Amino acid sequence: MKAEIFSIGTELLMGELTDTNAAWIAGRLPPLGIQLQWVSIIGDNLENLSEAFSRGLQRSDIVITTGGLGPTQDDLTREGVAMALGETPTVQEDALTELQQYFQTRGTSMPSHNIKQAHLIPSSQFIPNPHGTAPGWWTERNGKMIICMPGPPAEMHPMWEVQVEPRLREIVQDEVTLTRNIKTMGMSEGAVDEVVSEFFGKENPYLGIYSKADGIHLRIIARARDISAAQSMVDPIEAAIVERLGPYIWGYDEDTPERALGRSLMARGLTLATMESSTGGYLANTITEVPDSAIYFKGGVVAYSDTAKTAYGVPAETLRQHGAVSQETATAMARTIAHNLGADFGIGITGVAGPLEEEGKPVGLMYVAITGPAGEKELQLRVPPRRITIKRRISNTALIELNRMVNELDQAPD
Amino acid sequence: MKAEIFSIGTELLMGELTDTNAAWIAGRLPPLGIQLQWVSIIGDNLENLSEAFSRGLQRSDIVITTGGLGPTQDDLTREGVAMALGETPTVQEDALTELQQYFQTRGTSMPSHNIKQAHLIPSSQFIPNPHGTAPGWWTERNGKMIICMPGPPAEMHPMWEVQVEPRLREIVQDEVTLTRNIKTMGMSEGAVDEVVSEFFGKENPYLGIYSKADGIHLRIIARARDISAAQSMVDPIEAAIVERLGPYIWGYDEDTPERALGRSLMARGLTLATMESSTGGYLANTITEVPDSAIYFKGGVVAYSDTAKTAYGVPAETLRQHGAVSQETATAMARTIAHNLGADFGIGITGVAGPLEEEGKPVGLMYVAITGPAGEKELQLRVPPRRITIKRRISNTALIELNRMVNELDQAPD
Repeated sequence: MKAEIFSIGTELLMGELTDTNAAWIAGRLPPLGIQLQWVSIIGDNLENLSEAFSRGLQRSDIVITTGGLGPTQDDLTREGVAMALGETPTVQEDALTELQQYFQTRGTSMPSHNIKQAHLIPSSQFIPNPHGTAPGWWTERNGKMIICMPGPPAEMHPMWEVQVEPRLREIVQDEVTLTRNIKTMGMSEGAVDEVVSEFFGKENPYLGIYSKADGIHLRIIARARDISAAQSMVDPIEAAIVERLGPYIWGYDEDTPERALGRSLMARGLTLATMESSTGGYLANTITEVPDSAIYFKGGVVAYSDTAKTAYGVPAETLRQHGAVSQETATAMARTIAHNLGADFGIGITGVAGPLEEEGKPVGLMYVAITGPAGEKELQLRVPPRRITIKRRISNTALIELNRMVNELDQAPD
Repeated sequence: MKAEIFSIGTELLMGELTDTNAAWIAGRLPPLGIQLQWVSIIGDNLENLSEAFSRGLQRSDIVITTGGLGPTQDDLTREGVAMALGETPTVQEDALTELQQYFQTRGTSMPSHNIKQAHLIPSSQFIPNPHGTAPGWWTERNGKMIICMPGPPAEMHPMWEVQVEPRLREIVQDEVTLTRNIKTMGMSEGAVDEVVSEFFGKENPYLGIYSKADGIHLRIIARARDISAAQSMVDPIEAAIVERLGPYIWGYDEDTPERALGRSLMARGLTLATMESSTGGYLANTITEVPDSAIYFKGGVVAYSDTAKTAYGVPAETLRQHGAVSQETATAMARTIAHNLGADFGIGITGVAGPLEEEGKPVGLMYVAITGPAGEKELQLRVPPRRITIKRRISNTALIELNRMVNELDQAPD
């Protein structure tokens, strides 16, 4: 089944808002066996919308839209569908009563322009929206489908998960797609590519390679008539990848470095503290993206000046002798923070974030130190001299390396 | 002039990558007087690409593309343009020599498949790419333009800024669009809306209102034959907004809370330190997004546990008496960090980030304290209980409030 997505709204065309809905939906179509062919951003313009729906019904089996279901004159998604199908929207009394009640329970009367949201064409049904005033539209004609959802993610996501996806899963039965992401760090893209090269170039199962801020990812995609057939296509490739890249693999599928680390620490009741300079809080902020992080993260220091480094425990002598940007300072940072906050592991990061070089050391030169119950690890890295690249790469590297150390604790001799 | 954008790449259709190029370019078209009509994401499929280019040449004056210019078999943008125009690509010897030199200076010989990148059709010219192997294509035929740029932002952004935008500015002379963003914090969207309601609903000059993590933004867009005519349409509306919302306005256009604050601190040679709990490093990380932040940011503590709070100077007595989530603790955090790091200003943030309530206080309850040379400011806020919303809103509020305090220093009596 072929699908396309429309993200509707002039504000998307003005560059004021980056459309995240299309990517969110796109990632949910392969497991349903639906192949996304096109994504379009379309302004609030009736002619363009109608043209787009007409073309969509020709070239795709399903058109999925977000946006343009509000009550204002600019919200023209319903009108676009109606025009493309040559049908006329009429007021649905039930829906109107519900809308009026929605406003009544909020202590106001329904503004007259909201009546738009109670209209329907003969080929459409409402998709209930418990999180807002705009119901969705589910339209079917001549074996084709148009599914219209509201634009705000807080309304669209639950509508998709509770109503749209289950219904699509029943309808689309011809094929399933299974994907498996394998995430590595420590080998270059070229080296990973070479090691698994024989699996590239086939359409099904397909193997893709992607360079990300948290390492090199491999993605296996298999299409088959059912899950177990797809699984048996994925398994041998995954087994080969694991055999050849094992020590470099740090996670799968939806894993992030901070979630993988969080799981490892929680499973063992261990704790962490951080002292970072050039990553400027990115490391702590990433760790605390995990809802349960307060259980294992004691806290951190963003030691953005020498004053801060010495105030919070780095010996002035270390700074004087080796400089703020040195392996010795990174190690002192890791040790002092773990000690002061009573944590099992400490991470220390120092380096040159730019814009200018420091102590004669170039932008992008970074030192990481990790201290823990079974010893210390020290890393020196060179990263492309862009502020955000430095922050992301070094934080991810530190989290993944620490996760390895935590997992290695189990293998250490007693 | 009507334009459309193609973001090209199957990985964008798989939901693996969110397309940011289209929004980046979209935001740069209005000042050139170019009206964006459509954005499409298209997979690496020759037929779909050729179809899209043919349609684009019919309905738009300019088609701008990113992606699909690499050396692999999947990179089909060039082929799509050639097919749509019915022209045949041929190798350009000069370009081939340059490519070979590119690889030679890197110590390797050119892989044979890179020869694709030295091809051109009669209607096209190369757009040089100093940051990668893929030159762009600038194609003109029958008064229409196709501009193809590489997908990686690190290559696309400079190509746009240095080569494409200046050339477009020369070509497109019929109309300019002037935009002015005015950014407020402290009033609700409804209240801002009401105060400037008479300016809404006109097409030119157009006034838009947007609710963002850093407050309510107003955007004026005026189209006219030249900049001064557009400016005279913008000015009276801006003057009215400033008159009515003055104290709530914290920035304009590309300002972010952290950049606005950085400018204010640097102009006065003042410094800042932070101690944050529930924002988990987001505040420090935001401050250090500014390249010059090391000049005024001394550092911070992410006090994610009581241990960290007391280890770094919050009196245990304060925690015991008022709880970790209290105005008293926020104020103690602001004071102790400013004192310990010798900073002029200190920010303290504590609250309940969730997932569970703490000390009987609900998720989203937050306390902010700011201490400085002319006194202290205390804020209690309730934020929707989503982790990332809490982090963003509270950090932005703290930065904007501090910026107000810094600017008010000038108005204080000596």
